Formats: sequence, structure tokens, C-alpha cells
Amino acid sequence: MKYKIVQKLKEEAPGYVSGGELGKLFDVSRTAIWKYIEELRSEGYSIEAVSGRGYRLLPAAERLNAYEIACGLDTKLVGSKVLYFDSLDSTNNYARKIAAEGCDEGTAVVAGRQTAGKGRLGRNWESPPDKGIYVSVVLRPPLAPAETPIITLAAAVAVADAIGDASGLSVGIKWPNDLVIDGRKVCGILVEMGSEADRVNYVIIGIGINYSQEVEDFPEGLRGRAISLKTACEEGGETCLPGRLTVIRSLLRRLDNVTQLVLRYNNKEIIEMWKKRSVTLGRKVGFRLKDTDYTGTAVDVTEDGRLLVACDDGVRRELLSGEVSVRGIYGYC
Amino acid sequence: MKYKIVQKLKEEAPGYVSGGELGKLFDVSRTAIWKYIEELRSEGYSIEAVSGRGYRLLPAAERLNAYEIACGLDTKLVGSKVLYFDSLDSTNNYARKIAAEGCDEGTAVVAGRQTAGKGRLGRNWESPPDKGIYVSVVLRPPLAPAETPIITLAAAVAVADAIGDASGLSVGIKWPNDLVIDGRKVCGILVEMGSEADRVNYVIIGIGINYSQEVEDFPEGLRGRAISLKTACEEGGETCLPGRLTVIRSLLRRLDNVTQLVLRYNNKEIIEMWKKRSVTLGRKVGFRLKDTDYTGTAVDVTEDGRLLVACDDGVRRELLSGEVSVRGIYGYC
Repeated sequence: MKYKIVQKLKEEAPGYVSGGELGKLFDVSRTAIWKYIEELRSEGYSIEAVSGRGYRLLPAAERLNAYEIACGLDTKLVGSKVLYFDSLDSTNNYARKIAAEGCDEGTAVVAGRQTAGKGRLGRNWESPPDKGIYVSVVLRPPLAPAETPIITLAAAVAVADAIGDASGLSVGIKWPNDLVIDGRKVCGILVEMGSEADRVNYVIIGIGINYSQEVEDFPEGLRGRAISLKTACEEGGETCLPGRLTVIRSLLRRLDNVTQLVLRYNNKEIIEMWKKRSVTLGRKVGFRLKDTDYTGTAVDVTEDGRLLVACDDGVRRELLSGEVSVRGIYGYC
Repeated sequence: MKYKIVQKLKEEAPGYVSGGELGKLFDVSRTAIWKYIEELRSEGYSIEAVSGRGYRLLPAAERLNAYEIACGLDTKLVGSKVLYFDSLDSTNNYARKIAAEGCDEGTAVVAGRQTAGKGRLGRNWESPPDKGIYVSVVLRPPLAPAETPIITLAAAVAVADAIGDASGLSVGIKWPNDLVIDGRKVCGILVEMGSEADRVNYVIIGIGINYSQEVEDFPEGLRGRAISLKTACEEGGETCLPGRLTVIRSLLRRLDNVTQLVLRYNNKEIIEMWKKRSVTLGRKVGFRLKDTDYTGTAVDVTEDGRLLVACDDGVRRELLSGEVSVRGIYGYC
């Protein structure tokens, strides 16, 4: 209800809307309207009240909430429903829970902070309050578990493009779905799923973006390997940091685009997009397979989403995700 | 504690153990022992008390509880921990929940009844109280999601063998993992998993056996298509119905055996075992693939666990699980 008032005020801004008009519009008393206005102010909306004219919304710092994220998003599937929390243990955990309980496809879970953010392989994901962007989206593609690796690549493309849209920065993809700027990680993606033997029940695409951390906000061990959007914008010089709301809305739009490709089994196009943004192909890489370390050159991505590596021992090997070090990234040399 | 008393009484049966001796053994008072004995009696154990001699366990109907299921099971992994519930919504739901929370690998969840039993593809699984056997086991094999179809086949082999061990009945496997006796379904298996893009977090093998239903206990639509172990034993004439405890313990042992094969990547052996028990290979089958109906003859299972069908249109097609009708089974003709 209160966000309907915000919407009306937005439509009329910079004009005024009287309390009486708002009351009539939403069929509540002037006093009720006043209470909603007070609530909105406490959430950070700047609303001016002028006797005899009414209320008007002043331009102000963007607010992060489900209404602002979803408002006019105009996507086909992703963001069909948006849930916002000031704090969650992990947006992926929450999304998995509601997915198992049958939530709508496209539901996006957004949190202001994570108390137990997760990375791949059960690792921790640093999630300082209000310095990161934490979003998880629930999809239910009609795929077998073996057909899902393409989603990992599609998600990387979407997030790289979303950051590009919002900030103008050029973001590279390190196999399979780390996003890097100038050799440092700006975003991690954790794809999880629940499935029967031959049918996916749900896929969760979890995205953690380093947004406004200063160098000293990262744990010491990560400082040369991680970068925030804010630092990247400052270093770039020509771009200014977009608001978190802008980034999140770009994310949901770009994820919606690639989801449409996945649903049309358009793997070739996804892989072409991935390759264009890749900072892995053509480079020296190192990886471990069944307890043996290999080095070689990453040469291609196969149609079913595996990385093809021409190993230094003369054998070509296909990797399904997994851990790959790329020379020049995260200090690997 | 109280099951330690059962264990001691079992060891000494048909002899007596005095309350004083039990008290000393477990470092509690004779009165405490008496209270435990009363509890055990209320659970259905027949314990005789004779003044001056002590307690002894009388042979009686088996009791179904975690202690009796796990006692002396001697498996490597499956049944490392057993949880028993008189009633659950679904053993798979419960197992999935504790698996996501990090329960031990091999944990078995057993229920006396299910209030919302689940079959494949989100279907209902009829679970009348005390007439079925409902078991789910949590595994954490180091596999990629694409490598898990073998688990579906391995589970079918294990359950077919377990029913055979316990009852002497010969059980056939209909693709991929329905167990049938004389063309009627005696058991369904639901394999579910939670995973990252390239790594399984957990696999749940859920097993529902029709145990003691009479024909009229099945819903009308299922009567020609379902059979209980009890009816199968009666129709067979030469076998008598094993206790539920016996069947469950056989299940866990056989699942443990095949799990060892899965962990050694011994897919060939699993597929050979599956083929021997198959009532699908060599038969006319019908299936639907991307909205088209096909018929043909099931000819083989591939090494990665797909059913190879020589279709009547001259094309050979590989099926990953999915729905297949087999002529002569469930009234398909």
C-alpha cells in the first residue's frame, strides 16, 4: 500500500498531491495517508509536506526495497516476484528453501547483507553490510541435470553485461563464472540446483558483487585478488559508481535475457557471448583433475559447456567447471 | 540406554539377567532398570520378570525402531545412522532437509507411515499406515550431476536383491527403477539430489515398498498395476512374508553394496546387474520425447546409464530416465 503512494508521488513529481486526493485514490483516511508518509520517511524517502498543497517526493538517495527493485522492470520471467531483506544468512539458502516449497519461477531474493554468505565448493563469501550486492534468482528450466552447465555460462554473461550496462566498465569472465576487472574478482556466481535423477526441480543463480568495499575492507589474503565496483570506477577514471538499485535492476534484466536463450536451447549463442567476454581462452591455465596437476592452454568451450584445454603433455582435456587458474588473474603466474 | 538393556537381554536369551546385574552394568538403580523395562514393554517388547531370577526377553513380533534397524548391521556407509519415525510427511523431504543441513553420509530415514508420500515427477505415493516400507538414504558421492544416472540403476538393483534376499521372490526391474512382480509394481524409487553446477552436495535414494496391502487397499485405478509383498508371497505359494525389519535391514545392506560400486566408478558391473534383472530389454516399449510418441524395442543400456531403443521408425534413440511403457507391464499392450 505505502509503495502505491510512492508510485503516485513519483508520477506527479515535482508536483504536489494532496492528502485528500491520496486518501480518495486508495480509499483510506487522510490520517492513514499521513501514517504511511511517516513510515516512508523513516525508510529514507524524502517527502515534503506543504500545508494547502499536499505531499511531494523530493529527489534523494535511492531506496533499496522490493518495490523499487521490481517497479516497471518489464522482464518476462526473472524478477516476477522480488523479496528484499535487510539481512539474510545467505540469499542462496533462502532461495533454495522457498524453491523447495514451490515458489514462483523467476522469484528474486535480494539482501542488504549476508551473515553466512556462500561461495563455490562450500566456501565462505565475504558479505560486509551494505558494501555488496547479494541476489539469488529461482529458475525452473525443463532440463535434465546433465544439461545445466550452460546456465553457469549464461549467468556469467548476464552479470558481466549488467555491470557493463550500469557502470560502463568492461568486465571479463574467468572460467567458468568469476567476473574480473583488471585481474581482480568483482563478482562470484554460485549456481545450485535441486533435481530428480532426470529432471531439474529448481536452479538457483546466486550472485555476489563487490560493490563499495575499499581495499582495506577485504581480508588481507584477498586484497590483490578482489576489487569492488567503486574502486574499479575510481581507477577507471571515466565512470562513476552506479547506485545499487541500478545494478540490481540491470542484473535482473540481463538474467531475464539469457534465461530466454536457455529456455530456447540456444546454447550456441550463449557460448559465443561467453567467449567474447572470456579472459580465459588463449591463456595458459592450470588445473587439478583426480589428484593430478595439469597445465596447458585454454582453447575453446564445447557445445555442452566444457572448457577444452590443450595440455602441455599433448593431450586435450575437457573440463566441466571445476577449479582453473588462469595466468595473469588472481596473481597466478 | 533402554536399547542397551534390550541388547544385553538378547545376548543372554533365553536366560535371565537380574535387575541388580543390569543396574551394575549400566550404573543405574534397580528402580531405573524397572522403569526402562516398563518403557520397553509399552513399545511392544515381551519381557518376562521372575522374582529371584530377573528379566528375560521372550521371542515376539519384531519391533521397528532405529535400534533394531541399526543393530549389528555391519555396513560400510549406508545406515551409519538410522532415524526412525512413526510418521513423516515424506522420508525424502525429511532426508533432503537434514542433508542440506549437513547430516552424516549414509544416514537412513525410516517411517512407519507417510502423510504426503512422493513419487517421481511430483506425483503422490500411496503410503497407508503400517502397510508400506518407507526408507530414504542420504549419500554424498564425489560426482558431477551428469554422472548420477548410474545411482538410479544401482538403487533398483539393490532393492530388487534386498526383496529377493528377504522373501525369496524374484523381482524384475522396469526402466529405469520400478520394481515389478508379475507385471505389477511392488516398489518405487525416487532419487533426488542437491548440487552445485559441477558437484553433487547430496543424493537421496527414496524407497517405497508395497508391503502388506490387500488388493482392496490400493486405489481402484492401481489395482491391476500394483502388488504388495504379502500378496506376492501368497500368490507365489512357496514363500512366506518376511518381517518389515528384515526387509529394511536387507535394503540397507544391499544399498551399501551398490554404493561401494558407485564410489569405485564401477558402472559396468552395475549395468550388468541391472540388465540381468531387467524386464525391459528385448521388449516392445513406448515413450514420449519432446511431445512426440515413439514405439520400439528396448535393446541395451549405455555405459552412462541411458536406455537404447531401436525405434519402429528405424532410428535408435537414447533415453535418460523418463517415462517408458513396457508391453506386458501395468497393462500396457
